[in-house]
Amino acid sequence: MSLTAAAAKGTIDARLIMPFVNSTRNVLQTMLGLVTTIDRPRIKAVPAPEYDYSAIIGFSGKIVGVVVVSFRRETAIKMVTAFAGEVVEPDTSDFSDAIGELANMIAGAAKKDLGAVASISVPTVILGKGHIVTRPSDIPCMVIPCSTEAGEFAVEISIKQA
Amino acid sequence: MSLTAAAAKGTIDARLIMPFVNSTRNVLQTMLGLVTTIDRPRIKAVPAPEYDYSAIIGFSGKIVGVVVVSFRRETAIKMVTAFAGEVVEPDTSDFSDAIGELANMIAGAAKKDLGAVASISVPTVILGKGHIVTRPSDIPCMVIPCSTEAGEFAVEISIKQA
Repeated sequence: MSLTAAAAKGTIDARLIMPFVNSTRNVLQTMLGLVTTIDRPRIKAVPAPEYDYSAIIGFSGKIVGVVVVSFRRETAIKMVTAFAGEVVEPDTSDFSDAIGELANMIAGAAKKDLGAVASISVPTVILGKGHIVTRPSDIPCMVIPCSTEAGEFAVEISIKQA
Repeated sequence: MSLTAAAAKGTIDARLIMPFVNSTRNVLQTMLGLVTTIDRPRIKAVPAPEYDYSAIIGFSGKIVGVVVVSFRRETAIKMVTAFAGEVVEPDTSDFSDAIGELANMIAGAAKKDLGAVASISVPTVILGKGHIVTRPSDIPCMVIPCSTEAGEFAVEISIKQA
């Protein structure tokens, strides 16, 4: 599929995106004391790796799809340390739980803001450099690149109204 | 955490597991014409890679958690070919969609069998040798190793009643 075809196919209603931009900023500010700079969103046309760790949250109900929060390893380590208030050994259950909980807070606040009757799944966290997360190709994926003092991460939103 | 501690913590009601065993057998028989041999289930105490491709389905509602169907690459290629009735290039959207759809059928049939009011998310498919899928550590994970003529795969069930 060409980029143009994907972009044409891949229009996402901004009203579905903005709640995630807001909840990301709020969660990072409140929980980690970090200011988030949102870079230019882009459509992800072809499955490609984003970063090293990804937390995946499924949506079902009136909003269906998946939201992935993907972190560079160094960013994840700094954020989990700030979140837990102490150093947490990477690649342990506690570390994954913390990453998952951050994503859960972002998705949970956005869900509330969306105002739709939807439920979100518990987070699944993927560890592994170069892993690729793919979603059903009938739901376009918008990547929101974010940067903070602790490093870079991305929120990848693939949801639609059911 | 020791294996013993995890196993004690990780008891999973067999009534939550059997629907997945049955739906896995049925979907593979019906859609792929494959007989599935179920090996000895085990508790996954420590996050560890299973296979090369994983399809993840989230549960929410009265059943919460995540079910992951994880395939060896060679197994996935054979199964997608059987499913599509033609060779599908690995690592394309069509390939991921087929893997996701198989997992969706397994989870969907099991959900029906569970009889609980739960909804399942769209599948997310992870591509990448050695990736590790972790779930919230308060939900135990039971691995059901499966083998067929097309090769090995595993159904990893981390769900509980809400």
